[in-house]
Amino acid sequence: MKTDNEILMVAKTAAKLGGDILMKYWRDGVEMRDKSAVGGKTYDLVSDADVESENEITRYLKTEFPDHEILGEEGQLGDVNAEHLWIIDPLDGTNNFAHHVPHFAVSIAYYHRGEAVVGAVLNPVRDEQYTAVRGGGAYFGDQPIRVCESAKLAQTLVGCGFYYDRGEMMRSTLRAIEDFFGHDIHGIRRFGTASLDLCQVACGQFGGFFEYQLSPWDFAAGALVVREAGGKITDGKGAPLTIGKSRTIGKSRTIGKSSVVASNTRLHDAMVDITSRYHP
Amino acid sequence: MKTDNEILMVAKTAAKLGGDILMKYWRDGVEMRDKSAVGGKTYDLVSDADVESENEITRYLKTEFPDHEILGEEGQLGDVNAEHLWIIDPLDGTNNFAHHVPHFAVSIAYYHRGEAVVGAVLNPVRDEQYTAVRGGGAYFGDQPIRVCESAKLAQTLVGCGFYYDRGEMMRSTLRAIEDFFGHDIHGIRRFGTASLDLCQVACGQFGGFFEYQLSPWDFAAGALVVREAGGKITDGKGAPLTIGKSRTIGKSRTIGKSSVVASNTRLHDAMVDITSRYHP
Repeated sequence: MKTDNEILMVAKTAAKLGGDILMKYWRDGVEMRDKSAVGGKTYDLVSDADVESENEITRYLKTEFPDHEILGEEGQLGDVNAEHLWIIDPLDGTNNFAHHVPHFAVSIAYYHRGEAVVGAVLNPVRDEQYTAVRGGGAYFGDQPIRVCESAKLAQTLVGCGFYYDRGEMMRSTLRAIEDFFGHDIHGIRRFGTASLDLCQVACGQFGGFFEYQLSPWDFAAGALVVREAGGKITDGKGAPLTIGKSRTIGKSRTIGKSSVVASNTRLHDAMVDITSRYHP
Repeated sequence: MKTDNEILMVAKTAAKLGGDILMKYWRDGVEMRDKSAVGGKTYDLVSDADVESENEITRYLKTEFPDHEILGEEGQLGDVNAEHLWIIDPLDGTNNFAHHVPHFAVSIAYYHRGEAVVGAVLNPVRDEQYTAVRGGGAYFGDQPIRVCESAKLAQTLVGCGFYYDRGEMMRSTLRAIEDFFGHDIHGIRRFGTASLDLCQVACGQFGGFFEYQLSPWDFAAGALVVREAGGKITDGKGAPLTIGKSRTIGKSRTIGKSSVVASNTRLHDAMVDITSRYHP
């Protein structure tokens, strides 16, 4: 039986293995293709880089923990109700990756009986890693990190995301942004990688972050980093964030997406007050 | 008489001197204060870092070119109609700097008789420098850079900015963003530093960028980097971008702000078609 800190070492190694694969494609180039192919639109990109990264991470985790389940963005069908569950995003921020913006991540989380125990988020271009262990605090590299102290939205930057939606969810997001501006925030930021957005809340850059739709692998690791840095994370209406809505039946699965609001805790009610108002 | 390339070396040194000062405050901490103090709001921050950076850059440029004029964000009153004009932003992205987001820049441009000759934009945290010399191409470090090849908005990321406005200009920006989403762009990005946004167009990360109000020091260097990388930059209605609307009279000055649209050239008409529609 491994300790939580030993499991963290596995998570960090898994992130590094995935990151090394992404960096190979980052340097050599990669052809992006559409994943969802909804009406011929190409919002939701995927590449050999994503798939190879997930395969490598899965291979490694299965070696370390043969009986653990794995839920991954690129196809791993792990049962979300398993006692031991890894939730991985082998490439979060695919759009940035595709356009050569050096801001994307590998996200690795380990959940025990539905509770986050270990999280690791790595930006391989910058070689910047955020980690957290339940009850052990959050770190940027080997430096402890902490959410900001702001008590008013007026003193903060607010991060946001648009998922892949181009309809009602996008318009709701824009309305919420307008409302945030009305609260005299210092500014809106849209960097394009949810797992890193959450880490930017955790280390005090953003007072808060919201996105009206995210998949479990987008927030599974970042949520623990936020909490262990003193922050709070819920869905967009203030209710507990859960990965339990996902279902795996045979070879198909339904992934329960969720809205997400993260903050430095102090600002949480003010954040949810706005995000709940425009919630699609 | 120095050659353009010798002037570039001066611009790079000036950026480095300013960047070193910013990094001192970045590491040690800095107290931010309001600059414009409009209605007690604190959108437009300034700090000892900005002022000391501008002073140091000015001191150095005056040593190299005693008879050149300098127009700087933090108070240098150089005549914009001077034969030799340096336009400097000692800290672009003050909000990011204040919230410890490692994405801000020093921007240095040299204009001769109103025409951009040299531009240098340095992110001192990342030690990433973009430069351009008129007719000599654009560079990221020592690597030549080039705008992306996209012929359709649907294939691109679009960068944007909100300046410090919280009224009509902010709402116009949100309406333009909604319109861009309607053109199936891959995503909107808001990184918070205009000079770097322009460089992100120049190196092909963004297909285009727009902001409805910018000051000359925000775009003076980046505009040349965009053009020398094969891109195009105009105001938000497609008209030539000019710094000529600024006036200095005695110790006071009026800085002519402008809307800005930058693109990979191919996308320029499509960009302006949208930005002009919502232009405040």
